[in-house]
Amino acid sequence: MAGIIVAIMLIPQGMAYAMLAGLPPQVGLYASILPLVLYACLGTSRVLAVGPVAMDSLLVATSLSLLATPGDSDYLSMALTLALLIGLIEILMGVVRLGFIVNFLSQAVISGFTNGAALVIGVSQVKHLLGVQIPHSQSFFAILHNLLKALPQANGVTLALGVGSTLALLWFSQIMPKLLKRWAVSGAVTMALSRSGPLFVVATTTLLVWLLGWHASAGVGIVGDIPQGLPPIAVPPLTVSLAQKLLPAALTISFVGFMESIAVAKSLASQRRQSIDASQELIALGAANLGAAFTGGYPVTGGFSRSVVNFSAGANTELASIITAILIALVVLVFTPLFYYLPQAALAAIILVAVANLLDFREVFRLWRVSRADGVTALTTFAAVLAIGIGTGIAAGFLVSVLFYLGRTSRPHIAEVGRVGNTEHFRNIKRHPVQTCPGVLAIRVDESLYFANSKYLADYLMQAVAERPTATALVLICAAINHIDGSALKTLEALVEDFREAGITVYLSEVKGPVMDLLEKTGFIDHLGGGERVFLSTYQAITALENP
Amino acid sequence: MAGIIVAIMLIPQGMAYAMLAGLPPQVGLYASILPLVLYACLGTSRVLAVGPVAMDSLLVATSLSLLATPGDSDYLSMALTLALLIGLIEILMGVVRLGFIVNFLSQAVISGFTNGAALVIGVSQVKHLLGVQIPHSQSFFAILHNLLKALPQANGVTLALGVGSTLALLWFSQIMPKLLKRWAVSGAVTMALSRSGPLFVVATTTLLVWLLGWHASAGVGIVGDIPQGLPPIAVPPLTVSLAQKLLPAALTISFVGFMESIAVAKSLASQRRQSIDASQELIALGAANLGAAFTGGYPVTGGFSRSVVNFSAGANTELASIITAILIALVVLVFTPLFYYLPQAALAAIILVAVANLLDFREVFRLWRVSRADGVTALTTFAAVLAIGIGTGIAAGFLVSVLFYLGRTSRPHIAEVGRVGNTEHFRNIKRHPVQTCPGVLAIRVDESLYFANSKYLADYLMQAVAERPTATALVLICAAINHIDGSALKTLEALVEDFREAGITVYLSEVKGPVMDLLEKTGFIDHLGGGERVFLSTYQAITALENP
Repeated sequence: MAGIIVAIMLIPQGMAYAMLAGLPPQVGLYASILPLVLYACLGTSRVLAVGPVAMDSLLVATSLSLLATPGDSDYLSMALTLALLIGLIEILMGVVRLGFIVNFLSQAVISGFTNGAALVIGVSQVKHLLGVQIPHSQSFFAILHNLLKALPQANGVTLALGVGSTLALLWFSQIMPKLLKRWAVSGAVTMALSRSGPLFVVATTTLLVWLLGWHASAGVGIVGDIPQGLPPIAVPPLTVSLAQKLLPAALTISFVGFMESIAVAKSLASQRRQSIDASQELIALGAANLGAAFTGGYPVTGGFSRSVVNFSAGANTELASIITAILIALVVLVFTPLFYYLPQAALAAIILVAVANLLDFREVFRLWRVSRADGVTALTTFAAVLAIGIGTGIAAGFLVSVLFYLGRTSRPHIAEVGRVGNTEHFRNIKRHPVQTCPGVLAIRVDESLYFANSKYLADYLMQAVAERPTATALVLICAAINHIDGSALKTLEALVEDFREAGITVYLSEVKGPVMDLLEKTGFIDHLGGGERVFLSTYQAITALENP
Repeated sequence: MAGIIVAIMLIPQGMAYAMLAGLPPQVGLYASILPLVLYACLGTSRVLAVGPVAMDSLLVATSLSLLATPGDSDYLSMALTLALLIGLIEILMGVVRLGFIVNFLSQAVISGFTNGAALVIGVSQVKHLLGVQIPHSQSFFAILHNLLKALPQANGVTLALGVGSTLALLWFSQIMPKLLKRWAVSGAVTMALSRSGPLFVVATTTLLVWLLGWHASAGVGIVGDIPQGLPPIAVPPLTVSLAQKLLPAALTISFVGFMESIAVAKSLASQRRQSIDASQELIALGAANLGAAFTGGYPVTGGFSRSVVNFSAGANTELASIITAILIALVVLVFTPLFYYLPQAALAAIILVAVANLLDFREVFRLWRVSRADGVTALTTFAAVLAIGIGTGIAAGFLVSVLFYLGRTSRPHIAEVGRVGNTEHFRNIKRHPVQTCPGVLAIRVDESLYFANSKYLADYLMQAVAERPTATALVLICAAINHIDGSALKTLEALVEDFREAGITVYLSEVKGPVMDLLEKTGFIDHLGGGERVFLSTYQAITALENP
């Protein structure tokens, strides 16, 4: 049952997404046969529905349209090569277990990126609803500008078909389930009926155009001839110069596609107490892309909406995907002539309604509430995606999120400490009534030291020493330091040197075992003046230095 | 005295660095008058010697030569505009206190970058030693290739002058101080004499060319006419399109220049227990660049070698810089005709010897010893600078260092804990003999949660739940969590949802005050199922959940 429902969704979506990618509709169907079977054999998720998705299709369109004209045979063969490269990259990443790097994208970046990409995809489809031609662009604002310029040329019949299709799709997905529920129809039937909106729209609009001859009389754009028969099996072209041109796009699509796929696979798996192996997933998705490359398809990945439907419809094993693949194969073998009169506006409406579900601005507000940094990151990513493009947008968002994170961790908590009464305890002098002695500065730093915070520590120590002209010894309390990197070590070494010039000796206390090993191995302890400069406890350090 | 020694160094260096930047030699002298005075008035370092430096000059050359031909009046006016933009950027960064971002470059990146840039600068000067013309490039390998191709055209006399100058400079800096020390000459005189190598080379080679007429007979490249008189005062050209073209270069040079300057200023200040205000430094360097822009100069910053000399020669106040500026002004007023016969090969030798001091490959080995990640970062930066360019090299190095850091912090220590005997203490089940109960999983995470590690935690929890089918409750011990960002919160929310579907209730214990505030404010606690899902201690949580 799950396999059939997913096939009902996938037939129109596959054709629509292929169109979004600038490819003939059959390519979307070809990409929905062998890739599904390969993923079913190799993947660790039992419910992930692999195939063409909106985001990847847009990325294919934006990258290939810089190199060739949609509709050319060059364009088509580049899509195959792109799928091949993506397959190889994903398999390689899986083998060297690099799957974890998708975790480095923060939710703020993903949210800003998804909203931005949904708007770009949405606006890129409006031309089909209006029945106009506009120059290709990946900037939201440029597309909008071109649409407004082309508005006077809009085709009324096409627009009516597009708007009608959109309303029908919304009725199927939003209103029909409520009606069926009121009439006490069973869950499985409700799901099958409400998901067949796209198929209904495809059938109705095709019939309308066929019966009324709108393609000839009103110039409505139609899909036209789709070759009948199983996908052609061929080796995609691959030269070094072609690979170089396509590599940036292949990397971006691998990354984005894997990110979408792993997110939905993990979420669905944990709802059934199953677990997902990210590296094996990469290998399975890579194999699916290789399958697409050799059977006339284009890049595929695990899609969000179809996977959720597959899961809800009760898919328990990979059998569901194999049933879907068999049904799609049947369609390309027998039924493609039926799609001749299918209007492009109907496919555009299917894409529009699908990506509208990706828009989630409340998420951006929620991030803003949690922290200003997350909000700014999301908005920066969103703006960069709209204004420049998806790849640049993700890169900009990643950079901003990292800068905020470095900014936050680059100012660790540092305190001068003093002795509590006659105990062996030392506490922050600003919070507790403690004793200090004029010749010894005891400073505690509450963080591991690394490149982004070691100079902050050095500045703090310089300032502390400048404010205490009587100090001749500095004790750095290292109880909270779990790790020191090369930069921090270099900064500390320079500081020890500079302080020595200024007549101040640096001592360490409470150094953890692994850190002490590192300090000895790298010669820092010798640089400091030998092991007698390191004290086991702050108490020992202060008593030794107070009464020399 | 310090002011005079610095002036002796600065006269030949200023001309040489201007030549490195593709500018007429007097521009280097003009950049050494007003900027020094402005920095002296506004800067917080008492010993920083501002003026033209090698790295900035190379960056000026690589960025401007893409837009104009060295020697054109366009090229010259763009250098002024660049100084203007850099001045404005630095002042802006100073006003909004962004000085700390230079701390985000790790020592590994700086080391790889400095070695790479020194090699690029060095190899770019070899054409002057050989007396050949080669096409401009910023790739080390391309320059080397062009040099080898041009080798047969090398000018023997020029080469002899260049090699002779280099040897003389090395003798002054390496051998002469030892001789003078043996002869018990005083420190100040030794310093003044050993630093006058460049001036000696300039004087000797100029005399040689003048007396022997090598510029005419052997085609030795000479400096030629230098206009006499104080620098011209003029407003640099500034249009929006010019600013857009120069902005990337201006940002890179601001950043690199400030990084070099602040490093030496801080090191020298801490040796005398003084302190440096990074934001005020930015404003002072910005003012110095504005000064250069309006008086026919080009971008300046605080240089390493001259500042160290200034410090060692006993500069105690900003007066030393003002004396230097007055001496340079005297030179441009009166002595420029003396430089007519100065061979370019001598200036190239001065640059070569100066940048050779920047090479430090032992530092790269040291970083490699401290950690492989630092070593790889340094080598990546080095290779990117050599192969592509300085700006790209720094960006690539920064990215690699951040990825390594995220990689290290993205796998926090997480442990399942159990109860120690009948106490209220809970410890790692893998290290201690503890009791657990089948229905309750108690997990402790030893790190704040943020975008790069929250999915690792989620995977760990999914795995733990998949391995314990009897569990119906999960207690997340939050004692070590100081902060949760928006991504981590989103991940936790999705996890709570997925676990609820799987029949597992999530509880928290030992949540810190500020984290609890955040969780309440963002509605996470409501999402969790209300305040009764949060326990003050793990002991309370386990006893409540064990005996429901």
